[in-house]
This record gives sequence, C-alpha cells and structure tokens, in this order.
Amino acid sequence: MGTNRIEAFSDGVIAVIITIMVLEMKVPRDTTLTSLRSLAPQFLAYLLSYVVVAIMWVNHHHLLHAARRADARLLWSNNNLLFWMSLIPFVTAYMGNNYHDARAVALYGAVLFFCGSAFAILRSAISAQHRGNEDMLRYQYRTQLKNLFSVALYAASIPLAFVDVRISFFIFAFVALSYFLPERKLAE
Amino acid sequence: MGTNRIEAFSDGVIAVIITIMVLEMKVPRDTTLTSLRSLAPQFLAYLLSYVVVAIMWVNHHHLLHAARRADARLLWSNNNLLFWMSLIPFVTAYMGNNYHDARAVALYGAVLFFCGSAFAILRSAISAQHRGNEDMLRYQYRTQLKNLFSVALYAASIPLAFVDVRISFFIFAFVALSYFLPERKLAE
Amino acid sequence: MGTNRIEAFSDGVIAVIITIMVLEMKVPRDTTLTSLRSLAPQFLAYLLSYVVVAIMWVNHHHLLHAARRADARLLWSNNNLLFWMSLIPFVTAYMGNNYHDARAVALYGAVLFFCGSAFAILRSAISAQHRGNEDMLRYQYRTQLKNLFSVALYAASIPLAFVDVRISFFIFAFVALSYFLPERKLAE
Amino acid sequence: MGTNRIEAFSDGVIAVIITIMVLEMKVPRDTTLTSLRSLAPQFLAYLLSYVVVAIMWVNHHHLLHAARRADARLLWSNNNLLFWMSLIPFVTAYMGNNYHDARAVALYGAVLFFCGSAFAILRSAISAQHRGNEDMLRYQYRTQLKNLFSVALYAASIPLAFVDVRISFFIFAFVALSYFLPERKLAE
Repeated sequence: MGTNRIEAFSDGVIAVIITIMVLEMKVPRDTTLTSLRSLAPQFLAYLLSYVVVAIMWVNHHHLLHAARRADARLLWSNNNLLFWMSLIPFVTAYMGNNYHDARAVALYGAVLFFCGSAFAILRSAISAQHRGNEDMLRYQYRTQLKNLFSVALYAASIPLAFVDVRISFFIFAFVALSYFLPERKLAE
Repeated sequence: MGTNRIEAFSDGVIAVIITIMVLEMKVPRDTTLTSLRSLAPQFLAYLLSYVVVAIMWVNHHHLLHAARRADARLLWSNNNLLFWMSLIPFVTAYMGNNYHDARAVALYGAVLFFCGSAFAILRSAISAQHRGNEDMLRYQYRTQLKNLFSVALYAASIPLAFVDVRISFFIFAFVALSYFLPERKLAE
Repeated sequence: MGTNRIEAFSDGVIAVIITIMVLEMKVPRDTTLTSLRSLAPQFLAYLLSYVVVAIMWVNHHHLLHAARRADARLLWSNNNLLFWMSLIPFVTAYMGNNYHDARAVALYGAVLFFCGSAFAILRSAISAQHRGNEDMLRYQYRTQLKNLFSVALYAASIPLAFVDVRISFFIFAFVALSYFLPERKLAE
Repeated sequence: MGTNRIEAFSDGVIAVIITIMVLEMKVPRDTTLTSLRSLAPQFLAYLLSYVVVAIMWVNHHHLLHAARRADARLLWSNNNLLFWMSLIPFVTAYMGNNYHDARAVALYGAVLFFCGSAFAILRSAISAQHRGNEDMLRYQYRTQLKNLFSVALYAASIPLAFVDVRISFFIFAFVALSYFLPERKLAE
C-alpha cells in the first residue's frame, strides 16, 4: 500500500488548519484605526503560526517522501502529528488575544513542543522502514538531531514564558528561522 | 471508472470534519486557570472524536483499497457514511458542553451507531464486487463481524447513558481501543 | 492539459461546502428536549442539502469524466457552478431558521435553479469538446433534457413558495429522488 | 521531486479560502426584505472576491504547470502567495461591512497588491527553472508584464480609495475583467 493517500489526507488537514486560523481574526465592527490596531497581536500570532505550519508542511513533504510504505506505525505517527497540529489554531487565537499573558504563551509553546515531538516520532517510524540503508539512516539521524534540538527549545519556552514572554517569542522565531533560512540559502 | 475520486472526496470531507471539530472549542476570553480547566471536557470530547474519526479514516482507507469499481451502490454507501460522520463535530460539541447529561451522551452514541452501521453497509457493497473471490470474502466477513459487534455496543451505549453516562464513555473508549490496539501491535 | 486538477479543486470545494453546512446547526446550550426539537427544521434542511450536494457531486464526477481537456470554457463553467454551489450553506441555514417563510424557501429554490443552470452550461461546454462523436452527444443530450426539466421545476418552486412552501419542498424532494432512485436501481 | 503535492496543497488551501468566504455572510435572523437587502454589499464583495480568487486559481494552475521541480524557492514563493490569499476572506468581510469606508477598501486593495506581487515572485521562481529556454522565458516575460501592470493598479487603488472608493472598485473590476475576458475569448 502506497503513501499517496496519507499525503493527500495530511495535505487536506494542514490546508484546513492553515486557512481556518485566519477565521479566528474577528472582523472589527467599525473601521477606526484603534480597532484595526487592536488586531495587530492577532495578526502577528497568525503570521507566526502560518510560518510554523508552512515549515511543518514542507518538512512533512520531505519526510513522507522518504516513507516506503503506509504501515500502521506510520499511519498512527502521522495521525498523532496531525492531532497536535490541529490544536495550533486554538492556541494561536488564545495567544493572539492574550499575548502578554505567560499562561497563553506557555500553552502555545507546549503545543509546538508536542508537534515537534510528534515529528521526531514520525521520523523514527520512517527510519525503521530503512534498516540497513546506511545513507538514509545517516541523513535521518542528522535531521532528527536538529528536530530534537527544536523540541528542547520549545520545552524551555514553557517555563521561560513565566519569566518573560518575550524569551518564548524569541525561541519561537529562532526555531522558525533555523528551519526557514537554510532552505532559502539552498534556493539561491 | 476508478475509485480514486471517491477516495479524494472522502479524504477532503474527513479532513474538514476532523479539523472543524477543534473550532467548537471556543477560545476563552480570560486566561484564568478556571476558564482553562472548564475547557477540559470539551478537550477530552475532541480527543475521543479525533481518535474515532482517525480510526474511521484508516478503516476507510483499507476498505476502499479493496473496492474494484466506483459503482452507484459504492458511491451512495460512501455518501451515507460521510453524512453520519459529518454529524460528529456537532455531537462532540454537544457532549463536550454537557458531558454529565444522558441525552447528550446518548446522542453521541447514536451518531457513532449510525456511522458504524454505514461502515457495515459500505463493506457489503464492496464484498458484492468480489463474488466468487473466497479469500477476500472470508477476510471481509471477519472484519464485518468485528464491525457489527461495535455497532451492537454503540446501540447499547444509547439506553445505558440513561443508567450512567460513564458506562457509555467506557463503551466509546473500549471500541476505539479494540480498533487501535491491534494496529499498534501489528506495527511492532 | 488534463482535467485532474479541476476535479481535485472541485472535490475540495464540494467537500468543504458539504461539511461546513453542519456548522450552521448551532449547538444548543441546554439539553432539554425542547431545544433539541427546535433543531429539527435545521437538521431536515441540512439533510436535504446534503443529498442535493451529494447528487451534484456524483453528477459532477460523471460529467467531468467525459471532459477531454481543461479549456477555458470548461474551467469557467466549472467555476460558475462552484460559485452557485457555495451559496447552498447560506440558503440552507436561512431556510432551516425560517422554514415556513416563503421568501426563505424561494431563495433556496433560486440557488438550486442557478446550480442546475450552471450544470447545463457545464454540460454544453463538455459536449462542445465532442463534436462529431454522435454516441456521446446523444448521451449528453438525454442527460441535458433531464437537467433542464429539473431547472424548470426549480424555477417553478420560486413563485410557488409564495402559494404554499410545501409545494416547493415537494419539488426539492421530487428532483432529488428523480436523480437518486435510478442510480439505486442501477446498483441492484 | 515533483510539483504534484504543491498543487494538491494549494488546491486545498484555495478551496477552503473560496468556501469560507461565504461563511462571513451572516444568515439574517428575520426574513424581511430590509435585512435581505442589507446583505447586498456583503454579497457583492463575496462575488468580487470569488471571481478574483477563481482567476488566481486558474493562473496558479497555468503557472505551476510550467514548473519543472519543487525546489525550496518555488515552495516558499508558493507559501508566500497562499499567505496573502488567506487574508482575502478577512478583507472581503471587512469591506462588505464597510463598503463606503476608504480604509476598508484600501485594505482590500493592499491585500490584492500583495497577492499580485506574490504571483510575480512565484513567476520569477519558475522562470529561473527555465534558464536557456528562450520560448518559455519570452512567454513568462509577457505574462509578467501584465501581472506587474495589475500590481501597479492595485497599488494605485490604495491611496485612490481615500479620494473616492468607487475609483478603487473600478480598478478591482477592471483588473478582474482584464484577466477574465481574454480567457472567455480563447474559449470561443
């Protein structure tokens, strides 16, 4: 059994996740500059989550490309990942409404922590399909190290939000850039 | 005519179902622990429905893989299944808001009962395409028995919710695990 | 250029249409039988629209299967159809909330009238790709006659709603059954 | 690596964008002609955005058809485009509610400006894959000129909304027709 339908289903779920996030930005009733400006935190939270989900989609794309078959472990590692990703719209809206509140920012970090962990679990499931293929395992091992480093940073962002939420925001941006920038360089 | 487009359409519908369920978890206005804790029943209802829908997607994946052609019976058995599945977000939100209310839990059980029945009807439609293929029919017969057993349990969960809603919750969890655990074992 | 991506895009749009309709059934706050019963008209409106959209999807499936290329006329006839279909969730909710109001029922009939007309236009676009293929043209001509007959009935449902909304409901059900029943027979 | 999954993901995102726009047309509570008429601006805004997004989808279809591989530059140019497109439902609802307000119309123009610019950036990414293929580059150059002309018009629509919003509406309609009409002619 091929992995096409897993890719198609994941694409569908991620496409809906990335699009419904924008529904949480409530259209203001009036058009005063004040009410537009008050949307800024929600817009920035949406922008951050859009970049995070887009990076996840690109990584998912690469990861599933390496999958050899749709076995039960792969299917359920993927469903686990999509579950945590499906919570991103909720925590984005929650953080957008309460961006200076440690609890909201920590919850956002926690969901990203679980998403990152789910990616590592999915990568293990795929590596297990390549036993004996040294090149592939070496490549997945390197990618996994970076993945686990991000997971550790996301884990740190949870308690650090209670010190200063800006530390957590810095971590979110740093991890996003650490994935985004090398790709941009590859593209030149 | 192939079954690709049925799979693609079903994937689309199921992807939207699984994602909009999370929209029913209303983002709380404040960030007190009380308001976060009050989301717990809705989160647990979402988690249960996510697992239930994910299992249905995996089973649908296997089931349609065995389909030989997109005849009218298959198309409409599938549309029937998707109709009942499309009610899951509604009953999830209803049960999440009223988790100690027998009526809400019974309604959730009723929708799962109709989903399970629709699966059995879809499987019959597919088995009818394999007349004479003894191996396939034996395999589908075994799967059908398990399916009908789950349907019977879901049927029981409806009146039992009026005795104690925890019996119905136990049934929902038991059926989910009875599908999930063997797959996990297969994956080891 | 093939028609695959038109099918994929249409499947996506129709999958979202059919699923978000259920979002318009607002989850009641309490669990009294009264508040559940008050949902009945909305549920019946959803059921009707689900069957209507499912029939449209099946017909779209058959229709695009006959398309030979994704020319501009086909693309835009299809976009026209999807526009009118995208209004179905709105008029379903409107009619569900006001099922004894002639204006709401007439608006529902009007949207179905435009959907049916858009189907006829799409079929013409596809027939134009088969000039000289007598068998195909004869088949499309027969299907077109039935299509135009439904369009005439939907047109009649608009003024008749102001006589008695039940006449319009009868028309909606009659057209749906006239598409659904022959398919069921084919499947036996 | 092929471009199929980029197309599938983009189709999913655009399908959701085009469908959730209709959710912003709130179903009126009563059925008076007054409350229906008060929906007219929102309906017209939806109609305009539907045509704009449908044109974008058709152009995206043509554009990605010319892509040779899913390199990082293509992936991220595409994600950039989808980000700006994902804001269309928000600005459509905002403009529909405040259609005589310069700020709302200017914001709509600004989002279309960014969408148009994102298309030009995506086209550059695809042209870069065709270095040395003079025919393709000449074709993309001609299309790019028209694209940049639309971007310039959208840029002009932002300040001009503060002179008279009707100038901006004229620009939106003019650009849409400039893409739509030649296609219709091709189809004859």
